[in-house]
Amino acid sequence: MINNLIFPDVLLYLLDMIGIVACAIAGTLLAQHKGFDIAGCILVAMVNAIGGGTLRDMALDRHPLFWMTDLNYVLVITATSLILQIFFHLYPKIDNALKLFDAIGLAAFSVIGFKVALDQDLSPMIAVMMGVWTAIIGGLLRDIICNEIPLLLQREIYISASIAGSVTYLLLEYWGFNSSFNEFIMLGVIFAVRMLALRFDWHLPSIRLVN
Amino acid sequence: MINNLIFPDVLLYLLDMIGIVACAIAGTLLAQHKGFDIAGCILVAMVNAIGGGTLRDMALDRHPLFWMTDLNYVLVITATSLILQIFFHLYPKIDNALKLFDAIGLAAFSVIGFKVALDQDLSPMIAVMMGVWTAIIGGLLRDIICNEIPLLLQREIYISASIAGSVTYLLLEYWGFNSSFNEFIMLGVIFAVRMLALRFDWHLPSIRLVN
Amino acid sequence: MINNLIFPDVLLYLLDMIGIVACAIAGTLLAQHKGFDIAGCILVAMVNAIGGGTLRDMALDRHPLFWMTDLNYVLVITATSLILQIFFHLYPKIDNALKLFDAIGLAAFSVIGFKVALDQDLSPMIAVMMGVWTAIIGGLLRDIICNEIPLLLQREIYISASIAGSVTYLLLEYWGFNSSFNEFIMLGVIFAVRMLALRFDWHLPSIRLVN
Repeated sequence: MINNLIFPDVLLYLLDMIGIVACAIAGTLLAQHKGFDIAGCILVAMVNAIGGGTLRDMALDRHPLFWMTDLNYVLVITATSLILQIFFHLYPKIDNALKLFDAIGLAAFSVIGFKVALDQDLSPMIAVMMGVWTAIIGGLLRDIICNEIPLLLQREIYISASIAGSVTYLLLEYWGFNSSFNEFIMLGVIFAVRMLALRFDWHLPSIRLVN
Repeated sequence: MINNLIFPDVLLYLLDMIGIVACAIAGTLLAQHKGFDIAGCILVAMVNAIGGGTLRDMALDRHPLFWMTDLNYVLVITATSLILQIFFHLYPKIDNALKLFDAIGLAAFSVIGFKVALDQDLSPMIAVMMGVWTAIIGGLLRDIICNEIPLLLQREIYISASIAGSVTYLLLEYWGFNSSFNEFIMLGVIFAVRMLALRFDWHLPSIRLVN
Repeated sequence: MINNLIFPDVLLYLLDMIGIVACAIAGTLLAQHKGFDIAGCILVAMVNAIGGGTLRDMALDRHPLFWMTDLNYVLVITATSLILQIFFHLYPKIDNALKLFDAIGLAAFSVIGFKVALDQDLSPMIAVMMGVWTAIIGGLLRDIICNEIPLLLQREIYISASIAGSVTYLLLEYWGFNSSFNEFIMLGVIFAVRMLALRFDWHLPSIRLVN
C-alpha cells in the first residue's frame, strides 16, 4: 500500500534527479563543444544542474544548501558527466532523450522552487518567480560561462511553461482543491506545455525593434 | 505640512522607482536588440533593475530580499517591460529620457546601497563599495546575460559618480553636518556628476598597454 | 621561538595576500586589454581576487563577508591595480612572476576554502568542492565580465591541482597525521602540481565530440 505522506516526496525526488541528469548532460555537451577539459565539463555540468537551486537557496537564506547535505546531487552529476564524456561516441542519438529528460527537469525544478518559496510564506507572485528561477538560472549560468547568448531567452516556451504550471497550482488552491495532487497537476501542466511546444514548435513572439 | 521623518524616505522611494523604471527600459531595449522573446525581455529587465540590490542583500545577509516583501518592484518592472515591448514603435525617441532616468537611478541606488551598509555598522569604505555595487551590478549582469562587454566599465563616468557622492556624504558627516539633508546632497552630487559627464563627454582615462 | 598556534595562520594569511595580489594583477591586465577605464580595471581586479571567497561565504552563510571586516583585502587590491595601471610600461616582463604568484594564490585559496567548509562540519566531498570554488570562481567571473571563454576550464591543470591537494589532506588525516602540518603539505602539493603542469605543459585531456 502506498504511503500518502511519503509517496509524493519520493516521486518528486526521483523526477528532480531525472532533471539533474538532464542538466548534467546538457552542460557537459555544451562544454565539450567549447573544448573544455574533463574537469571543466564537470564544472559546467554542476553549474547547469545545481546553479539555479544554489542561488535560490542563497536568496531565500536556506542553509546549508541542498546539495551540501544530500551528496547524491554532486555524485549523480559527476558520474553523469564522466560517463557521457567517456562513452558519448557510443550514443550519438542522445538528443530526443535529452529533450524528454529536460522537460521533466523543468517541471520538477519549477515545483520545488515554487513550493520552497510558499513554505517561507512568500507572496504567490514571488513563488512563481522562484519556480522560474530554480528552473532556468542553471541553464542561464551554463550559457554565460560558455559565452553563448542564452537560447532559453530567445524563442523557447520555457519560462512560460513554468509560469503556466504555477498559475494552475494557485488557481486550484484558490478554488479549494487543497489536496497534495495539486503539485502533480502543476508538474503535468509544465511537462505537457513544454512537450507540446517542442512538438508543434510553439514559441513566444519577440517584438523586434522597427529600426 | 511636510512630515520631516517620512518625507526623505518617500522621496528616496520615488527616486528609487524612477531608477527601477530606467533599468527596466534599458534591460528590455538590449534584450529586444538581441532578439529575446517577451519573457526573456522581462527577465533581463528584472536582472537589470533588481540584480544589484539582490546580490547586495545576499552579501549583507538581509532577508527576505527587498523585492520579496514589496511587490511594487516586480510589478513596476513587468509593467514597464511589457508596455515598452508593445508600444515601443510609438516612442522611438526614448533615448534622452532614458539617460535622465538612468542618472536618477544611479543616484538613488547608490544612496540606498551606501546607507544600507552604514546601517549594518560596516566600514565607510565598504559602504562606498556597496553604493557602487547596488548601482552597477544590475547593468553588469544585463550585459553578461546579453553577451556584451560591459559598457559601464569602459569609458563612462558611472562608478566614479557614485564614489564622488559617497565621499561627499562622508565628508559632510565628518565636518559635523549630521542632518538628513546629507543624503540629498549625495543624491544631487551623483546626479550632477553623471549629467555633466554625459553633457561634456567626460570619461576616465584608460591606460592602454603599450604593446 | 615560533608560536605554533599563530604561525600557520600568519603564514597562510601572507600566502593568501600573495594570491590576492596575483589575482588583482591578472584581473587588471585582462581589463586593460579590453580597454576598460581605471575604475573598470579596479572592479575586475576586485572580482578576480575576492569574487570566489565572496560567493563561498554567501553559500556557507558566513557573514559579514571576510573582506568587509578585514579592509586589507580591498586596500591591497586597489593599490595593486592602480600601481599596475600607472607603472605597467616599466615592467613589461611581469608574466613569469604572475604565474608564480598565481600558483601561490591557487594553493592558499584552496586551503582556505577547504578548511572553512570542514570547520562548518560539511562532508569532505563538499570541502573539496569549496576549495576549488574559492580558487577558481574569481577567475571565472573575471573572464565572464570580460566576455572571454574561461581559459581555466579548457586546458589547464588548475581544478585538478586543487583537488589533488585536498585529497592529500584527507588521506593524511585518514592515516592519522592530525598535526597542523597537513595543511602545509596540502599547500605544497597544490603549488607543486601547478608549477610542474606549467613547466612540463601538462593538461587534462578533453574528449572531443567525434562529429
